[in-house]
Amino acid sequence: MRAIDHHCHPLRRWPFELTALELRACFTEALDPRVLRDHVPATAAYRDALRRLGADHEETILAARAAADPGEYANGLLERCGTGCLLLDFGFQPAESWSPEEHRREVHLPQYEIVRVEPLAERLVADCATPGDWIAAVREGLRSSGAVAVKTIAAYRASLRLRRPAPSELRRDYAELRRQRRPRVAGNALCHALVFAAAEECVRAGLPLQVHCGLGDPDEDLAEANPLGLRRLFTDPGLDGLRVALLHCYPYHREAAYLCAMFPGVYMDLSLAFPLAGADAGRALREALGLCPWTKLLYATDASRIPELYFVAAQLEREALAGALAEILDFGAAMAAGRQVLVENARALYRLPADS
Amino acid sequence: MRAIDHHCHPLRRWPFELTALELRACFTEALDPRVLRDHVPATAAYRDALRRLGADHEETILAARAAADPGEYANGLLERCGTGCLLLDFGFQPAESWSPEEHRREVHLPQYEIVRVEPLAERLVADCATPGDWIAAVREGLRSSGAVAVKTIAAYRASLRLRRPAPSELRRDYAELRRQRRPRVAGNALCHALVFAAAEECVRAGLPLQVHCGLGDPDEDLAEANPLGLRRLFTDPGLDGLRVALLHCYPYHREAAYLCAMFPGVYMDLSLAFPLAGADAGRALREALGLCPWTKLLYATDASRIPELYFVAAQLEREALAGALAEILDFGAAMAAGRQVLVENARALYRLPADS
Amino acid sequence: MRAIDHHCHPLRRWPFELTALELRACFTEALDPRVLRDHVPATAAYRDALRRLGADHEETILAARAAADPGEYANGLLERCGTGCLLLDFGFQPAESWSPEEHRREVHLPQYEIVRVEPLAERLVADCATPGDWIAAVREGLRSSGAVAVKTIAAYRASLRLRRPAPSELRRDYAELRRQRRPRVAGNALCHALVFAAAEECVRAGLPLQVHCGLGDPDEDLAEANPLGLRRLFTDPGLDGLRVALLHCYPYHREAAYLCAMFPGVYMDLSLAFPLAGADAGRALREALGLCPWTKLLYATDASRIPELYFVAAQLEREALAGALAEILDFGAAMAAGRQVLVENARALYRLPADS
Repeated sequence: MRAIDHHCHPLRRWPFELTALELRACFTEALDPRVLRDHVPATAAYRDALRRLGADHEETILAARAAADPGEYANGLLERCGTGCLLLDFGFQPAESWSPEEHRREVHLPQYEIVRVEPLAERLVADCATPGDWIAAVREGLRSSGAVAVKTIAAYRASLRLRRPAPSELRRDYAELRRQRRPRVAGNALCHALVFAAAEECVRAGLPLQVHCGLGDPDEDLAEANPLGLRRLFTDPGLDGLRVALLHCYPYHREAAYLCAMFPGVYMDLSLAFPLAGADAGRALREALGLCPWTKLLYATDASRIPELYFVAAQLEREALAGALAEILDFGAAMAAGRQVLVENARALYRLPADS
Repeated sequence: MRAIDHHCHPLRRWPFELTALELRACFTEALDPRVLRDHVPATAAYRDALRRLGADHEETILAARAAADPGEYANGLLERCGTGCLLLDFGFQPAESWSPEEHRREVHLPQYEIVRVEPLAERLVADCATPGDWIAAVREGLRSSGAVAVKTIAAYRASLRLRRPAPSELRRDYAELRRQRRPRVAGNALCHALVFAAAEECVRAGLPLQVHCGLGDPDEDLAEANPLGLRRLFTDPGLDGLRVALLHCYPYHREAAYLCAMFPGVYMDLSLAFPLAGADAGRALREALGLCPWTKLLYATDASRIPELYFVAAQLEREALAGALAEILDFGAAMAAGRQVLVENARALYRLPADS
Repeated sequence: MRAIDHHCHPLRRWPFELTALELRACFTEALDPRVLRDHVPATAAYRDALRRLGADHEETILAARAAADPGEYANGLLERCGTGCLLLDFGFQPAESWSPEEHRREVHLPQYEIVRVEPLAERLVADCATPGDWIAAVREGLRSSGAVAVKTIAAYRASLRLRRPAPSELRRDYAELRRQRRPRVAGNALCHALVFAAAEECVRAGLPLQVHCGLGDPDEDLAEANPLGLRRLFTDPGLDGLRVALLHCYPYHREAAYLCAMFPGVYMDLSLAFPLAGADAGRALREALGLCPWTKLLYATDASRIPELYFVAAQLEREALAGALAEILDFGAAMAAGRQVLVENARALYRLPADS
């Protein structure tokens, strides 16, 4: 069955010549060239990725891709992912990636967009004199975005131990933000205010809120990225009906599974754990399926840049899912549960067409 | 061998007609009807529970129980648990459950009572003008309760990062508590004061203190329910000799096992993890047996309301225990260790008669 | 291949008669005699240790060692560890252990020293009037120590959630330290100031900093010993080039592995988890090899006092490593990765001679 990849990022515009270091950079969060040079090749995840890409040596893989037509190569690998449609976050949009329009034209799979709160909010600072105006403008921006989901990367800029900021804190931090030449939202007061505003707007618009938790970005402090900190999103009576997708979650996947078991609107994926944590991601999936209903588990690659990453993440996650479900269910039930994880949960959560 | 179930709750008074939603509600902490309707049936734990109850479909199980004599049915399932006696917490006592007297009459197994601190303390607020009077009355209440253990559910109302409250905090929060029409103990000052008072009284009376940790109640914030926060109970020289049973613990079971390994008076169980976390509870048990001596591990179902839950939890835990011990010990040693976990540790901890 | 044991402690001076309780004390962090008497024999780790020492009963082992020549016995067991050289922390130096000079004479393996910050700092308090003088003297002491690494046990005395103390805090706590008859460094201000000073000196001198994390000492609060709290050591631009070895890490080994994957200078071991957590340490190693490159994993026994502990820890860790690598790599790659963990990573990190 063709899966819905409920969270991924745009491909890099082709043609381009991929280097070994750039390939490695897709299988680590680290930015430091010393990690790429000396350590990524010594991870279980990267070794396995090379094998899945058909060769033990990077050079073989890079040579094969360099010899191919880039569009055919990319679309061919995406096809082999077994993915039926992509929900794309263009929020971190380097110039080297396709724009949304280009992406739809170049990549053959059906695509939907996810709107990321923080960059939208940063673009609105210049025109908003007060935090109240700003929050209102952010909500309006989310409402008119045409996206199928809203995403927050508060975890890269603040703690996920959410609390509503005091108005005075928010005024102070917003005044400081206004003084920055290129405003960068950071700190608990601004980030949490945005998360609550986004959550309220999601309830109003019937959109799910994707929240980055656990590993996944070099800027974040993993100690502050535990999804348990989001509890107020699930217990605040003013947010009843909010649906939240916890992204990545590792190594807090048992905690994320707990939230899925407790609160009707909480969903999770392990996405990025597959290409980064290799064999341990499969173990994490089995641990998560202790508490997490399979009606709450979502499929995502969190891939970006190169089709190879899409392909490896998709293979890993599908194999891990099949193994985990086979441990706890008979064949027929495992197949049905797999279909829910790969397709049906996301289709219902994001209100996608029945044929997606 | 017949086990001592060192922590469970009263059965619902029969006869009553069990619905599918009520059955599901026993295999989740969630109260939300949407979770019961859409998600509990999609958990490994619930699927497994149905299978153990003899049918894939709830209707078959419900019809069989409806056709049976309720007392025979309940006592029959309890008999099949292999349980020799029950330590019962009546602290959360909905009107629909048997009272202690009724429970002893209707349920054939020998029974002992556990006294829960917080509801006892709430009943005493009206008669106590100051926090000092109140704490003294609570201690007197625990002393005269006739219970074999004291239990605290501080984790549902406060953080488990225990510290002794300042007298001024305690006075302020107690004054506020006195103003409530139906006093509800909550917040760190009141809850921690009660925990320390209960611990002191337990030392004095030679009773163990049961402390809820980890998952297990919709009111709690799991981020604040890590048993490591209880450290002061184990290091305070004034509490030397205190014996503590950490209840549930999941997903902080490695942390609980650490405390069991470090401090002579600390014991743990995984109880509720079995019916809730399914296959992952077995994994958690093996993880816990890394650091936790089997002289410190206790057996409990944490079951309540319906005998089916007792039965499923008992089966799961016994199987998981057998599997885990067989991995680390030869047959004879595993049998002896199993006997300690099922019977002997609890018999010694609660000072039960030799034939219990 | 003969391993580099990158973190261990001196042997007790022989001859001495080992008692059963002293043997047990090597397989637990607990100091309480009730734990030694009643619970250590009921742990998977201790049972396994006895078996590896050749007997089910302590008496047999103790009798065999009592009948042997102590030096031959100790050196024979160390030889059987397959260890090629020892990096020794003499920082906690009870009178009953060999001094560094004696240790080199009595123990046949090549040895290097690790200098522990906190006792060095405590010895310098009397001669330093201000915190500035004291920190400078500590840095000078580390510089002139001749050690191959610097070690901090801040986790026994403070939280590992590092932050640079305010000068006023440091002055206040240092003044208090000066008033103590036998100065004992404790609390965040003093401990964190020392950690940052040691880190700066390590960068300057090209030495690695060993940091105790996770389980390992009865004084520590495990809740505060998560290596994620060390993040500032890895992100502070003034500490670029710092190399850190996270010691023990359990049960925060997935978190430690994350830091190894993210930051070029971070290394980890599981050392003490092997003799303490038994079978679960092997599981932890497999979990850690999810994110941790094998170029970042180090081999250590963290053994001390008796050669039996060296022997058991070495066997356990070698077997666990072989099993974990065989799961993720083919034979040739697993052998190469094993060589890196056992020898090459430590040789490069500590800049040891090529034949060590």
